[in-house]
Amino acid sequence: MERRQLESLLTAVERGECSVEEALERLRALPFEDLGFARLDHHRALRTGFPEVVFAQGKSLEHLTGITERLAASGANLLVTRLDPDAGTVLARHIPGFEYHALGRIGRKPGNHPAPAGNGTVLVVSAGTADLGVAEEAALSAEVMGNTVERLSDVGVSGLHRVLASRDQLWQAAVVIVVAGMEGALPSVVAGLVRCPVIAVPTSVGYGASFGGLAALLGMLNSCSAGVVVVNIDNGFGAAAAASRITHAGS
Amino acid sequence: MERRQLESLLTAVERGECSVEEALERLRALPFEDLGFARLDHHRALRTGFPEVVFAQGKSLEHLTGITERLAASGANLLVTRLDPDAGTVLARHIPGFEYHALGRIGRKPGNHPAPAGNGTVLVVSAGTADLGVAEEAALSAEVMGNTVERLSDVGVSGLHRVLASRDQLWQAAVVIVVAGMEGALPSVVAGLVRCPVIAVPTSVGYGASFGGLAALLGMLNSCSAGVVVVNIDNGFGAAAAASRITHAGS
Amino acid sequence: MERRQLESLLTAVERGECSVEEALERLRALPFEDLGFARLDHHRALRTGFPEVVFAQGKSLEHLTGITERLAASGANLLVTRLDPDAGTVLARHIPGFEYHALGRIGRKPGNHPAPAGNGTVLVVSAGTADLGVAEEAALSAEVMGNTVERLSDVGVSGLHRVLASRDQLWQAAVVIVVAGMEGALPSVVAGLVRCPVIAVPTSVGYGASFGGLAALLGMLNSCSAGVVVVNIDNGFGAAAAASRITHAGS
Amino acid sequence: MERRQLESLLTAVERGECSVEEALERLRALPFEDLGFARLDHHRALRTGFPEVVFAQGKSLEHLTGITERLAASGANLLVTRLDPDAGTVLARHIPGFEYHALGRIGRKPGNHPAPAGNGTVLVVSAGTADLGVAEEAALSAEVMGNTVERLSDVGVSGLHRVLASRDQLWQAAVVIVVAGMEGALPSVVAGLVRCPVIAVPTSVGYGASFGGLAALLGMLNSCSAGVVVVNIDNGFGAAAAASRITHAGS
Amino acid sequence: MERRQLESLLTAVERGECSVEEALERLRALPFEDLGFARLDHHRALRTGFPEVVFAQGKSLEHLTGITERLAASGANLLVTRLDPDAGTVLARHIPGFEYHALGRIGRKPGNHPAPAGNGTVLVVSAGTADLGVAEEAALSAEVMGNTVERLSDVGVSGLHRVLASRDQLWQAAVVIVVAGMEGALPSVVAGLVRCPVIAVPTSVGYGASFGGLAALLGMLNSCSAGVVVVNIDNGFGAAAAASRITHAGS
Amino acid sequence: MERRQLESLLTAVERGECSVEEALERLRALPFEDLGFARLDHHRALRTGFPEVVFAQGKSLEHLTGITERLAASGANLLVTRLDPDAGTVLARHIPGFEYHALGRIGRKPGNHPAPAGNGTVLVVSAGTADLGVAEEAALSAEVMGNTVERLSDVGVSGLHRVLASRDQLWQAAVVIVVAGMEGALPSVVAGLVRCPVIAVPTSVGYGASFGGLAALLGMLNSCSAGVVVVNIDNGFGAAAAASRITHAGS
Amino acid sequence: MERRQLESLLTAVERGECSVEEALERLRALPFEDLGFARLDHHRALRTGFPEVVFAQGKSLEHLTGITERLAASGANLLVTRLDPDAGTVLARHIPGFEYHALGRIGRKPGNHPAPAGNGTVLVVSAGTADLGVAEEAALSAEVMGNTVERLSDVGVSGLHRVLASRDQLWQAAVVIVVAGMEGALPSVVAGLVRCPVIAVPTSVGYGASFGGLAALLGMLNSCSAGVVVVNIDNGFGAAAAASRITHAGS
Amino acid sequence: MERRQLESLLTAVERGECSVEEALERLRALPFEDLGFARLDHHRALRTGFPEVVFAQGKSLEHLTGITERLAASGANLLVTRLDPDAGTVLARHIPGFEYHALGRIGRKPGNHPAPAGNGTVLVVSAGTADLGVAEEAALSAEVMGNTVERLSDVGVSGLHRVLASRDQLWQAAVVIVVAGMEGALPSVVAGLVRCPVIAVPTSVGYGASFGGLAALLGMLNSCSAGVVVVNIDNGFGAAAAASRITHAGS
Repeated sequence: MERRQLESLLTAVERGECSVEEALERLRALPFEDLGFARLDHHRALRTGFPEVVFAQGKSLEHLTGITERLAASGANLLVTRLDPDAGTVLARHIPGFEYHALGRIGRKPGNHPAPAGNGTVLVVSAGTADLGVAEEAALSAEVMGNTVERLSDVGVSGLHRVLASRDQLWQAAVVIVVAGMEGALPSVVAGLVRCPVIAVPTSVGYGASFGGLAALLGMLNSCSAGVVVVNIDNGFGAAAAASRITHAGS
Repeated sequence: MERRQLESLLTAVERGECSVEEALERLRALPFEDLGFARLDHHRALRTGFPEVVFAQGKSLEHLTGITERLAASGANLLVTRLDPDAGTVLARHIPGFEYHALGRIGRKPGNHPAPAGNGTVLVVSAGTADLGVAEEAALSAEVMGNTVERLSDVGVSGLHRVLASRDQLWQAAVVIVVAGMEGALPSVVAGLVRCPVIAVPTSVGYGASFGGLAALLGMLNSCSAGVVVVNIDNGFGAAAAASRITHAGS
Repeated sequence: MERRQLESLLTAVERGECSVEEALERLRALPFEDLGFARLDHHRALRTGFPEVVFAQGKSLEHLTGITERLAASGANLLVTRLDPDAGTVLARHIPGFEYHALGRIGRKPGNHPAPAGNGTVLVVSAGTADLGVAEEAALSAEVMGNTVERLSDVGVSGLHRVLASRDQLWQAAVVIVVAGMEGALPSVVAGLVRCPVIAVPTSVGYGASFGGLAALLGMLNSCSAGVVVVNIDNGFGAAAAASRITHAGS
Repeated sequence: MERRQLESLLTAVERGECSVEEALERLRALPFEDLGFARLDHHRALRTGFPEVVFAQGKSLEHLTGITERLAASGANLLVTRLDPDAGTVLARHIPGFEYHALGRIGRKPGNHPAPAGNGTVLVVSAGTADLGVAEEAALSAEVMGNTVERLSDVGVSGLHRVLASRDQLWQAAVVIVVAGMEGALPSVVAGLVRCPVIAVPTSVGYGASFGGLAALLGMLNSCSAGVVVVNIDNGFGAAAAASRITHAGS
Repeated sequence: MERRQLESLLTAVERGECSVEEALERLRALPFEDLGFARLDHHRALRTGFPEVVFAQGKSLEHLTGITERLAASGANLLVTRLDPDAGTVLARHIPGFEYHALGRIGRKPGNHPAPAGNGTVLVVSAGTADLGVAEEAALSAEVMGNTVERLSDVGVSGLHRVLASRDQLWQAAVVIVVAGMEGALPSVVAGLVRCPVIAVPTSVGYGASFGGLAALLGMLNSCSAGVVVVNIDNGFGAAAAASRITHAGS
Repeated sequence: MERRQLESLLTAVERGECSVEEALERLRALPFEDLGFARLDHHRALRTGFPEVVFAQGKSLEHLTGITERLAASGANLLVTRLDPDAGTVLARHIPGFEYHALGRIGRKPGNHPAPAGNGTVLVVSAGTADLGVAEEAALSAEVMGNTVERLSDVGVSGLHRVLASRDQLWQAAVVIVVAGMEGALPSVVAGLVRCPVIAVPTSVGYGASFGGLAALLGMLNSCSAGVVVVNIDNGFGAAAAASRITHAGS
Repeated sequence: MERRQLESLLTAVERGECSVEEALERLRALPFEDLGFARLDHHRALRTGFPEVVFAQGKSLEHLTGITERLAASGANLLVTRLDPDAGTVLARHIPGFEYHALGRIGRKPGNHPAPAGNGTVLVVSAGTADLGVAEEAALSAEVMGNTVERLSDVGVSGLHRVLASRDQLWQAAVVIVVAGMEGALPSVVAGLVRCPVIAVPTSVGYGASFGGLAALLGMLNSCSAGVVVVNIDNGFGAAAAASRITHAGS
Repeated sequence: MERRQLESLLTAVERGECSVEEALERLRALPFEDLGFARLDHHRALRTGFPEVVFAQGKSLEHLTGITERLAASGANLLVTRLDPDAGTVLARHIPGFEYHALGRIGRKPGNHPAPAGNGTVLVVSAGTADLGVAEEAALSAEVMGNTVERLSDVGVSGLHRVLASRDQLWQAAVVIVVAGMEGALPSVVAGLVRCPVIAVPTSVGYGASFGGLAALLGMLNSCSAGVVVVNIDNGFGAAAAASRITHAGS
């Protein structure tokens, strides 16, 4: 559309229906995205299948229902994060094909075109059972974005044999997302075992001096293993988005 | 070596020179890495060309000289970070082929075998001139690790046209490292423009309530652009290591 | 009244009914505001139409009803901030002409004399839909204070084309209030585009390491765009008061 | 120049020397600022006389000399902030007409065209003698930006009579910049006395639990006087820039 | 009792019924308080009338009822702090003469002997209406401890005339307790007006960057008025105890 | 089992049923714990009787019931921490012999084999009645781990005679766990009185500037008594585990 | 002077030389302090002998010399705090009778009239030898303000017998200033032993997690002994000023 | 002496030279330590050989020399911590037998009686070479206190095989002190491998968001391995003191 708008302006210049001066003025006033900026954005969405993501937390039920219905109708790959069970039930009733995943507090509905497949497996590793919710948010989000996802759970550093026993699985991953609360030490250990990218997700799991995940966050930022990168506390979705940027590289 | 050690034990069992009971006991006592663990580690270094990195800060000059001379002699790709000019001069005098880069406080010496080439370009973007030191640490480190590196400087968000004018360069990068102090907003803007991985490096540039880079760090962790990942404050080397994990994926 | 009090004292001195010594003593004891201080305060209210503002949060319903009824009866421009829906409904029932705005949690009732008109438009820009509540608090408050207010919403920095497309609207504003949570980068971008005053309002929108708006607050204080000023987290009313001080300058 | 570039493209289309398709492609690649964006930026500088500002802190002497000489040669109004005495002496020797102000650590040189005059007086109020350096940074910067500046010093809240005695001066200002360390209470008191805009600058003056100015910063952000706005700790320049945005409004 | 225990030991030594060696050994094992230490503690309570204080918050209703009934029965001056309305109602039903004060969340019952009277008036000054709860906790507690208490409310620094109008009342106080939230500036202003002791109580009133009273606390600790002392956030009782130590000095 | 697995592999080599090469490959793939690692872990559990501990907080009732039933069936010493009364009642109904302790929020069920007895008494000292919950968590946990536990309560430093009166009890303990909130000073006092190990547990008891136990935590970490060690805020279980490591030393 | 100014105005009114209207206008413009406010301030200084205090830190030597010479010439009791040895030597050379105390970094010179004597002894208690500097600042300042001062040093809580052995001295003090770093527990212990006012001074003594005195500050604010009041970190002078407000009460 | 004082009093009572009443009065006034308290303290020093420890940091050279000479003369086991090389050289010149250890910044001189031997080995494990200084402070201090000490260095979690290879050494230790900076993950890993007590020492090693060791401190406090205890940042001496309390238990 925007391209067509620009095309018709140029055609008018070509035909002498519009003076150069006039065209200059209109070009200056043209909304920026008409020059390909917004379109690009759109192209990117088409290519990567990166879905429109709805962050449900703090939204009223009406707003939530309205937005998701409109997106579902558009045929996009629908992903709703931080969705509580009650709202999830409502959405599942309204939108055919919508499925709710309680553990990761994620709602999903496949769109008309699946997301383009990423290269390689995204492995989501979590330290303790209390980190499973954030891990599921990451895993389910990564799936919607076109990735093959594997899960490896309860491999905290207090029992190293658990993570060591899974070395093969770790070595075969294209990207590893490591979800951990408390002292957040697992990404350092994992990054010492693999050479693929490692994305660390601190969780707010812990009490007292974990200060809502600050301890794990600082731990991960100060990892002694070179090349660990970190996202916000409890931000499983963000880790999935980062992983998907990696697996879709070059595509 | 370790494999040979294990092989000879098994051969001894095969030949009846060692009882099963005795072998069990020796296996239990065998250092863990003898089972392939440490070797693997070694293999990884060979494959990725990831150099032995020396963190110079806080090391005495004697220690520093000793370590780097030994590494240089081994033929490895030598990378020394946080190296101040005085120590850099000393090392350059001692080690033939050693070059010191003052801005990034990096010392380098190519090894016998160059690091394997990464896939695609690592683009290091910095917001202000005061961020150039950290940006150079990232760029020089990434080069040592086998990457093609481009630099894009002084494109802070207070003048958007500067970053927008470089869209093509941004779009062609395989990974973008964004280095910024103060409010740390540049990664959000860049990640809204590209679809490749974006690694954010907060710097301690700023005064007052930047609290040594905390403001930029928090800003980057809370980026509204999905998929931005973050490393420690001023950690240009860490960003390069993460970028290199990405560009060497699959290799 | 106070002036009259002072006048009668001076007259008594003039008439010899009060000795200089006695007058000195009484002047010393006279409450300070009797010398014009409080009156000035009053004059200011008359001139700027700055309404009596009721901060509802934490007040009991009885207190709230009592205060607002008294103010409404006085004919002042009534503004109640941080008013929850239940209390808003009660007030709307008690006070004719009182209207409640749920999104901004604001209650208003025009007084007998409208506030003097400010010079130019106050433009309230918000980054995401989750910032709309604070933005409405700012917009509605600024309106009560006599300002023409425009709103520009959902123009976060992850999609620059959105804010760039509104350059004309930005350029025409007398003051821009920029409301943003997460990394709080929008004021830096906006202040790079306009030359009028820019007031930044951090919001507590975000999770994890936003630490209740601290990330956005620090981001805004460290803005790389010169001349950005900041108010407290979620303090839409404060931003409106600051904007109104600017638009009423010289009046 | 950029306009001419665009003009020649359109003329080529008009003349049939360039197809519409080709023009579309070239327009897409055209740097954004060619459409007037950067020019606008330039226009703004011309109109507001807002000088090129050099932040000297952390820059090497060579860099600093180079940048300032080039700027001085361009005829711009030169302003160098955070300039220590030694560097100031060097610059004064190199650049004719350059003057160094030790208290505010500011270097200035008038350009060919003075900055356009702002409307009204900028009054810089400081709480204690230890705050004078930051206050001078604000005052000198505001002067370079075309403002008439007055100073009011040592009027801390522990002796209210000092600030009350200056009510007239306060009432006549167009903008008041209030510089204070320790508990940062002065802006609240001043904003209760005037109705013009009040910009608060926390300073790092204080010891112990002032935590480098954090106490004053928080105090100012939590001011009980409506409409106080705040800039970064010790950021006198930033306050001047904000004040100048206000005094140049409408111009 | 303890004295008697010691007396009988000494008597036994006097009578030769106990050897010196044996007495030495028994003295060494004697609980410390038997030497007058605990008795002294008791004497202090008798002299100052400082009541047994019950901190109700977090205690179960059964515990609370049990403790207060026992204390009431002992004839002591009963003071219960942080008492919510429901528990207050229960206690009022169980304990004759018990009265509950909702604003200060205090329950009191006069004992058999009133507390000894303190010297001079304790003046409790509060900045805003939202600080009244903490102010009442201070005022009611100080009364129970034998003090004459006056209250001065809503004299925040945004309208200085209010506090200045009460100079006489301030000058006549023996101790001033100043209760303030937000930026906590009032104690600095008050301490600049009086020469008696000033005890500052920060409150958690405020939002956003008040961080639960931290802003007010830091403000008060950094007061530019010499001699301001500070207690914990919202700790009205603590301020009363400190004031009472002062008014009972020498008694 | 694992040993048997390894044994059969070696036997196969011995018998020539498996080549050395093949054995090498299988050994490399063998999960790490098969080499004695996990067994050791298991041995440790047998020797120290350190029970499987269930952290109930945040677990769903189904999960909780499932895990504890399975553990109870296994005959292990069952310990459930952070168990709220409702869940405690449910578990007590499902699991014969399960007892719930409300104060410490602990559920326990003796296993088939009691934990091996520790050397000496673990003395749990608490400063105030509000610290009793955390103290009980420590005491009950230490009992399950095979320790003789004594309790000493309400001996805060504001009345030194209370702690001094218990010197004998303190001197006879093998380990002292000191539980305190507010300023957390008790461990310093106790460690000055005894020469056995002292483990400090900060609690979140306090208000205002205790910041959820941070004040006590910092106080304990900065103890002027040499050799005080600290665990996380409110972590009574962790202190018990540390104490039990000490009392079981050498066993 | 100011009184005379007012007197002459009133006399002019009495004589008919000035109209009431005119007098009203002049009174309104009259600086506030002319009404007795500033005089009062002056009276207070005369009565309490509270000296003009010079905070030397951060002042240039010229400034310092100028200010102190002028004050010394005025005959006031001179007190200079935070004075380093070099500057102290310079001042001692310039100002006859000036004495420098290195430990407390205090310079003093008695004025023409000694400060009025306070009631009772100010006892300055310090926990460790590293706290002696701050303790001396408090002690020397209190002396200048007219107080009898005693010192009690090195009585930290890790050896309770030291503080207990000084109970008599503690009981006889009118005010106790307690100076302590590290965990800051000493004020709690002292306040449990005495009933006079206790002023706590946290020091920055300690390392690691003392965070520059924050640990001691929080510890003191959270004291479990009722009525402990706190001043800023290392603020010995502030504690002396507070103590002197108490000892001069009623005078 | 004190005992004799008490003895003579009792003898006087026995002989009738002192009445019971009089003796009671004198006993009440008797300094507390005279009853055996201080003596006990002394006994403890004799038994545990715990040396008089001098914390050199911040002490003047004269003070330092004076104290250490006096202690050396007394024949005690001398231990000086945080001793910089210059002061160490001075002390070594003054005190025969004094030896200075630069890495751990420790000075030592054996006393007349060696400290009683502790039970078992204290193993000091450090994560990186930058942690060696703190580790040496711990190791040398523990030796002075009578312990057999072993060291295990450079076993950070980024290369697990290094720590796993030392399992035997870990298993044989009586106490393990784990020294680590950055993310502080090593204690969690070690505590998962051993069942003896584990004392974690966070170091200030790291940059950026390590915030002077805060990251490591929080990581260790939040360890997922049960029973890890923590001392202050960089407090190697404190860890040694804690370890020595454990190894001397029962003695």
